[in-house]
Amino acid sequence: MLEKKMKSDIEIAQETEMEPISQIAQKVGLTFEEIELYGKYKAKIPFEVINRIKNRSNGKLILVTAINPTPAGEGKSTVTVGLADAFNQIGTKTMVALREPSLGPVMGMKGGAAGGGYAQILPMEDINLHFTGDIHAITTANNAISAFLDNSLQQGNPLNIDPRRIIWKRVLDLNDRALRHITIGLGGPVNGVPREDGFDITVASEIMAVLCLATSIDDLKARISRIVIASTYDRKPVTVDDLGVSGAIAMLLKDALKPNLVQTIEGTPALVHGGPFANIAHGCNSVLATQTALKLSDLVITEAGFGADLGGEKFLDIKTRQLGSTPDAIVLVATVRALKMHGGVNKNNLKEENVEALKIGFSNLKRHLENMQSYGLPVVVAINQFASDTAAEINELMRLTEALHVPISLCQVFEKGGRGGIDLAQKLLPLLQEKTEFSYLYDLNESVEEKINKLVTNIYGGSKVSFSAKAKRQMREIEENHWNNLPICMAKTQYSFSDNPNLMGAPEGFEITVRELIPKIGAGFIVALLGDIMTMPGLPKAPAALKMDVTNEGKISGLF
Amino acid sequence: MLEKKMKSDIEIAQETEMEPISQIAQKVGLTFEEIELYGKYKAKIPFEVINRIKNRSNGKLILVTAINPTPAGEGKSTVTVGLADAFNQIGTKTMVALREPSLGPVMGMKGGAAGGGYAQILPMEDINLHFTGDIHAITTANNAISAFLDNSLQQGNPLNIDPRRIIWKRVLDLNDRALRHITIGLGGPVNGVPREDGFDITVASEIMAVLCLATSIDDLKARISRIVIASTYDRKPVTVDDLGVSGAIAMLLKDALKPNLVQTIEGTPALVHGGPFANIAHGCNSVLATQTALKLSDLVITEAGFGADLGGEKFLDIKTRQLGSTPDAIVLVATVRALKMHGGVNKNNLKEENVEALKIGFSNLKRHLENMQSYGLPVVVAINQFASDTAAEINELMRLTEALHVPISLCQVFEKGGRGGIDLAQKLLPLLQEKTEFSYLYDLNESVEEKINKLVTNIYGGSKVSFSAKAKRQMREIEENHWNNLPICMAKTQYSFSDNPNLMGAPEGFEITVRELIPKIGAGFIVALLGDIMTMPGLPKAPAALKMDVTNEGKISGLF
Repeated sequence: MLEKKMKSDIEIAQETEMEPISQIAQKVGLTFEEIELYGKYKAKIPFEVINRIKNRSNGKLILVTAINPTPAGEGKSTVTVGLADAFNQIGTKTMVALREPSLGPVMGMKGGAAGGGYAQILPMEDINLHFTGDIHAITTANNAISAFLDNSLQQGNPLNIDPRRIIWKRVLDLNDRALRHITIGLGGPVNGVPREDGFDITVASEIMAVLCLATSIDDLKARISRIVIASTYDRKPVTVDDLGVSGAIAMLLKDALKPNLVQTIEGTPALVHGGPFANIAHGCNSVLATQTALKLSDLVITEAGFGADLGGEKFLDIKTRQLGSTPDAIVLVATVRALKMHGGVNKNNLKEENVEALKIGFSNLKRHLENMQSYGLPVVVAINQFASDTAAEINELMRLTEALHVPISLCQVFEKGGRGGIDLAQKLLPLLQEKTEFSYLYDLNESVEEKINKLVTNIYGGSKVSFSAKAKRQMREIEENHWNNLPICMAKTQYSFSDNPNLMGAPEGFEITVRELIPKIGAGFIVALLGDIMTMPGLPKAPAALKMDVTNEGKISGLF
Repeated sequence: MLEKKMKSDIEIAQETEMEPISQIAQKVGLTFEEIELYGKYKAKIPFEVINRIKNRSNGKLILVTAINPTPAGEGKSTVTVGLADAFNQIGTKTMVALREPSLGPVMGMKGGAAGGGYAQILPMEDINLHFTGDIHAITTANNAISAFLDNSLQQGNPLNIDPRRIIWKRVLDLNDRALRHITIGLGGPVNGVPREDGFDITVASEIMAVLCLATSIDDLKARISRIVIASTYDRKPVTVDDLGVSGAIAMLLKDALKPNLVQTIEGTPALVHGGPFANIAHGCNSVLATQTALKLSDLVITEAGFGADLGGEKFLDIKTRQLGSTPDAIVLVATVRALKMHGGVNKNNLKEENVEALKIGFSNLKRHLENMQSYGLPVVVAINQFASDTAAEINELMRLTEALHVPISLCQVFEKGGRGGIDLAQKLLPLLQEKTEFSYLYDLNESVEEKINKLVTNIYGGSKVSFSAKAKRQMREIEENHWNNLPICMAKTQYSFSDNPNLMGAPEGFEITVRELIPKIGAGFIVALLGDIMTMPGLPKAPAALKMDVTNEGKISGLF
């Protein structure tokens, strides 16, 4: 990410002449008749196509993950997009599979989340705003469940729901802290049953996780029906199916389940679909999109949210079990500035050269590297270059990585597009020919406690796990309900291997406390809460929206 | 609406082979390149097209309105669609301009709202569910304003907003009574400023009214900037512009502002766009859609919500002022069953023949007729036929209407499609050649009180208007802020000319109390509340959603 007088992301995006989406579809063998257009530059892939191609052999799969990031992020999406463009430049038919951005952070802090510089997906304005309506459909489906639930309370409570034990929350795709803790049903008997409630951001909804893990409409409906929304007064789980609306909710999501086809700046076909949080959920784009991309191209580049300890681990231990295939190689994105931060440098001094801090902070990269290798997969390190990186820092980082016999590449896709990722692609190419022997971190039939222990000791480097009284009680309930054999979705800070965001580098010997265990039976995982996890962000004093505008001709500015 | 063993609406819809939307566009002279496809059977009309055709002369315009309805509605949409099909059958190039349905009532009571029988707009599943995302965009824009407002309170309240005097509410496009009265911002200082709030259904949002009255993106943005959301502690109005987000909110609505093109069962081009409530708002589809249809075809059939006293009056006194043109004729839809109800028959006995009750209830039709004629427009009565209507009843209704020298037609479009509306079309055709002399009910520069007096005495038949203390205070505020010269949007029951839903027929001598006057400065009207107006419906004991489902192939059932 060289910062010398470059154009803004939206300027670069708006200067790009996009290919009609039907032409992008042709590149992956789909005819105009087969896709569902949403304007000229977006399309959905219908189930007829997904069924037609389902018996094809799969292309290769590369997972892009990262070290523990700085608050600004380390440019995983940018590397993912640029790498796919690079592979297409060197003759490998490649697609991208990415998450779709949430509007809340776009209007709040980020301004946009579709890659950056010359490694973006387009049309960036649409993708960052309403796109094809998937997230709005999820919001509606989520809140319809809430409305049916509160209506059931109102209509005599035939399901014997304990209003104090409703775990299903409402959602909006906005940053709106004032909705975190609310009371509803006020105003007397005709206006509902009073109770506490709260709104999460839509991408934290279990519906989002369900949509991203479902392999068909039938599977989607089955998952929806299993979602646990509350307990009865005698502590039995109440599900969406108990409300009798699984079919209606699946109906609301039938179009949202279809993967979205768009393109990169260089015309690489991209499936951008689903965007669950990587803390409270598993943080990867949809299984259907990745599966579809694997059928349509020789190589798929995909990413997982946050660092390799969160999104990366969950991709491997949660998503691959639904995907039916595993990555052939992993790209671990690192930045000089993040490594210096892990070496003790203050956030405000990250632009100053500091080779010593980099050496110390390298421990963070090293542990992520070893973790990813422990799944039996080859790893390549990608340095996402920034203007402030010095030659001495980059050389030291290369030396340290090569001493571990791990390939490393200087990645300049932000500034150069695919051309800036050709070296990375060439380092990956031979690895894709090798046979991998993938192994999961844990077996599903291990106990919840054993799985969490393995995560904390083998991946995070902690020494001990303890469980709060609440978590212990929840563990018993999980056993009673026979939910033990689900994978674990760890909800912890993205800034550290530990549950303390200030513990940089590769901390050891720390203890982890599991505060809560939340069964997400529709998604099919147990969330282990290791701290206060923000599921509804707030807006900053000066939200990004203040700079946004649209002309009378419909041209947008202020998304950056 | 003959009820003998007919197929359900969704069965008829799903059996219809639709034309590709590009073919429908060709019928009105638009090329494939000019429209923005949303799947194969929906498209948006971009601003380039709207600008290209704006200097064309207008087609003729027919407004379909109705007598005071029964709770089930009298089939205005069905007549509107069938009449357009009929005109196309007899060689008049005709388009339909309709509102888009709200998802809340679809999931709750109605099951679907896109016409009925053989007079429907298609694809009915899409139109009834997420359609092209317009209503979701409105939900998001509305709630973004709330989030920015609460963020302003949280960040030191620089606008000096009085949290007790915030009138801007959040919205969802669902029936969800538990959200009518809520408290937000609970949970301590990092979670917002505690205050009372509530959710309306999205179609009751001022943003919906704004979108439906805006004539361009610039006009949309200007209207948004003027929306009053709160008062300061010293009782000054606070607007969206004060929050600094008018541009961002307009940006969120730029695609929603483009009219949606679909088709009727008989392939008539239909613009289905915008759907404001007809009580708290003006109840008509968007000005841009109606204007566009008038440029694209020789004749446009459009409808207004509820009866002629609500939607009809507002179409004429509010929408036409933005539209820049007025109807050439009015169709007043009546049903035998509703007239019998106005004649005193209980809702449960409406299927029994009762000519005497019909004669009495005819007073309701007669007053609506005279009201519509008072605008200087020719009116034709359309009997929307039901299976339970007897020949004696229909003959009596025809006799009574013809005695007033008003054309009347028996309309069978539900059962027969356009063929069932040819007689109605032929009765309208000569009227369209006549010159009309349209006159508004009131001038904009009359006082708020004078305008409301004219509405109550001239349209409703009441004798006196009184204002609550609150309304009197609000009237003074309206004067102080120079908002007097806006039209009035009456919010009252749709079941009676009066503010009492049980006062059937053509009541006289009643008094009306205006409880509140709510300035909707973005929409550009003053809402006069005549009673408790439901702006967030509830769900019934057995919501329509219980019967809805979707197959693994994506086929929907249970929308009826």
